[in-house]
Amino acid sequence: MALSHTLGVELGERSYPIYIGSGLLDQAELLIDHIQGSSVLVVTNTVVAPLYLAQVENTLKAQGIRYTCLILEDGEQHKTVASAEKIIDCLLQNRHDRQTSLIALGGGVIGDVTGFAAAIYQRGVHFIQIPTTLLSQVDSSVGGKTGVNHPLGKNMIGAFHQPKCVIADTDTLDTLPARELSAGLAEVIKYGLIHDANFFDWLEDNIDLLKTRDYEALCQAILVSCRIKAEIVSLDERESGIRAILNLGHTFGHAIEASMGYGNWLHGEAVATGMVMAADLSQRQQWIEPTVKQRTIRLLEKANLPIKSPSEMNVEKYMQAMAIDKKTLNGTIKLVLLEKLGEAIVTSEYDPALLEETLLEAQAG
Amino acid sequence: MALSHTLGVELGERSYPIYIGSGLLDQAELLIDHIQGSSVLVVTNTVVAPLYLAQVENTLKAQGIRYTCLILEDGEQHKTVASAEKIIDCLLQNRHDRQTSLIALGGGVIGDVTGFAAAIYQRGVHFIQIPTTLLSQVDSSVGGKTGVNHPLGKNMIGAFHQPKCVIADTDTLDTLPARELSAGLAEVIKYGLIHDANFFDWLEDNIDLLKTRDYEALCQAILVSCRIKAEIVSLDERESGIRAILNLGHTFGHAIEASMGYGNWLHGEAVATGMVMAADLSQRQQWIEPTVKQRTIRLLEKANLPIKSPSEMNVEKYMQAMAIDKKTLNGTIKLVLLEKLGEAIVTSEYDPALLEETLLEAQAG
Repeated sequence: MALSHTLGVELGERSYPIYIGSGLLDQAELLIDHIQGSSVLVVTNTVVAPLYLAQVENTLKAQGIRYTCLILEDGEQHKTVASAEKIIDCLLQNRHDRQTSLIALGGGVIGDVTGFAAAIYQRGVHFIQIPTTLLSQVDSSVGGKTGVNHPLGKNMIGAFHQPKCVIADTDTLDTLPARELSAGLAEVIKYGLIHDANFFDWLEDNIDLLKTRDYEALCQAILVSCRIKAEIVSLDERESGIRAILNLGHTFGHAIEASMGYGNWLHGEAVATGMVMAADLSQRQQWIEPTVKQRTIRLLEKANLPIKSPSEMNVEKYMQAMAIDKKTLNGTIKLVLLEKLGEAIVTSEYDPALLEETLLEAQAG
Repeated sequence: MALSHTLGVELGERSYPIYIGSGLLDQAELLIDHIQGSSVLVVTNTVVAPLYLAQVENTLKAQGIRYTCLILEDGEQHKTVASAEKIIDCLLQNRHDRQTSLIALGGGVIGDVTGFAAAIYQRGVHFIQIPTTLLSQVDSSVGGKTGVNHPLGKNMIGAFHQPKCVIADTDTLDTLPARELSAGLAEVIKYGLIHDANFFDWLEDNIDLLKTRDYEALCQAILVSCRIKAEIVSLDERESGIRAILNLGHTFGHAIEASMGYGNWLHGEAVATGMVMAADLSQRQQWIEPTVKQRTIRLLEKANLPIKSPSEMNVEKYMQAMAIDKKTLNGTIKLVLLEKLGEAIVTSEYDPALLEETLLEAQAG
């Protein structure tokens, strides 16, 4: 059996383990050790259900656990209050009491919606993440952010609710479409940019292996990404400070996602373009060398990610969408920018004229 | 000026003050000291708005705070996800960022819905409670429980989210309908039953003064009630144990409310009848003397509260509604029962045959 890793997210009484490796879905004890109560609801979607639901069901059956399955539609456009309500309806109709556990089997949307439903069902029940995409394995399954979108903004409705454990089975990446693999790599590259220049170097050396889904390379990338995210989240669970650096590229990216209609651009794709814009502004501020921006663009390109703003976007659309973003503080748009490769800051102390230049450049691109 | 009291709810970094007294709505500093950021949303309802909204608006205007008002329909039937969504729509449409503060001006429904919206808007923003009913002053504004109802059960969707302060202005009780004053007294009497026999004695002596809205008596009743609730909540913020005794009469009461259709029986009325049933079962268990049950009934009657189950209810309806109640643990119905006057326990170790007798007695009544 391939090596697997266990990483602890240290959050006091809300600490939890992340298991990373191959064949984990068949290791019943990983799941069973973290189930509370005698009933479970597995939430998944129409794409993931035919691939992996049976494995989870077999584990639950073998342990004699009463369970219900709910299969939602696939896609960011279903990350809504309505989907969270479907989960709650299902829990009540099947008489799950407050000792129930929810299992999120799928990508970031399933994790975020299921986590949010777990946060608000009877004021909070246990949940377990089984992320089946690279993006959710390295990002949304770590840190306890849960939530849904609103027509006026992404993730505007949500809660902090930590999972009891995360099971990242790398075998599930075998069935991941190439476009989604790339979207996950965007967040992996982000960790190098904001926190670890050596990891960025390593990614430059290993990007081809990652694209061909080399098991060892993927495992390493997921482990380092989760470790960086876990470290930052431990310092600032509720995002009152440092944690916000995890949003590098996200303010621009959210603007793209919102303006283009959720689901047309993948989250990772929008973040990739957003990171190029963040690097561009950082360079205009003369905080980073031009080579850092160039290396960022080159690595993202190699990962088959978009590095140019969609032609439909313009300065006005960016400003409008960004003004409502959560990182806006009393009207000033806070941005995550780079001070050097491997170091990011959250700041509103940039030159607005340079921001406009960055947006104009994106528009021209 | 009449005396006013400040009571601290001790919850570590989530501690907050409760201000109790006359004329508090005009004391701008109480409100202003606890507002975060530069924008405020005041949520109230069609009954309370014409009475007290102008006072709150004047305070905000005088301090130059940008504010928005949202007036919801009145009534328990509006304690829904849809109402919480209205609040969030309003926040986004009016560009309230995550540094905004919500003010809940009204009774328990307004407090619970607004608190829930504050809990889930951008993963949590500040909120302030200005309860304008006796029930909300002594119960729902203390302890951080927020939430909304689901067609299949009361408070099934919610979160723990502590307010930054509670301003209980007793002047607002002058306009409270008599039926709602009585409903509030049900919860006041509950505190005596579960935690303080001396307070129960005091209530027996002062029930007539309370009914005539004697200022001193009301102030005292609110202060002692909040102190008891704050003490219990401090011991067990998230209701993993002792806090559940606050639900005396609530499991039966929720069954009545749900079966009769929300809003037809007031919450306090249903709890009053539920407490009689809890006392009845406690007596059948021979845990309390018959006199305790008799005194409970007499005091509730004097407070103009219903002490008999509605004729529409029967054993089956109770059992069905109670099975889905949050206090159900792995299928066993946990109940709050009395061990003596001033002492309650949460237990599933009662004789089911005696529970059935209590339900039959209620049905016959």
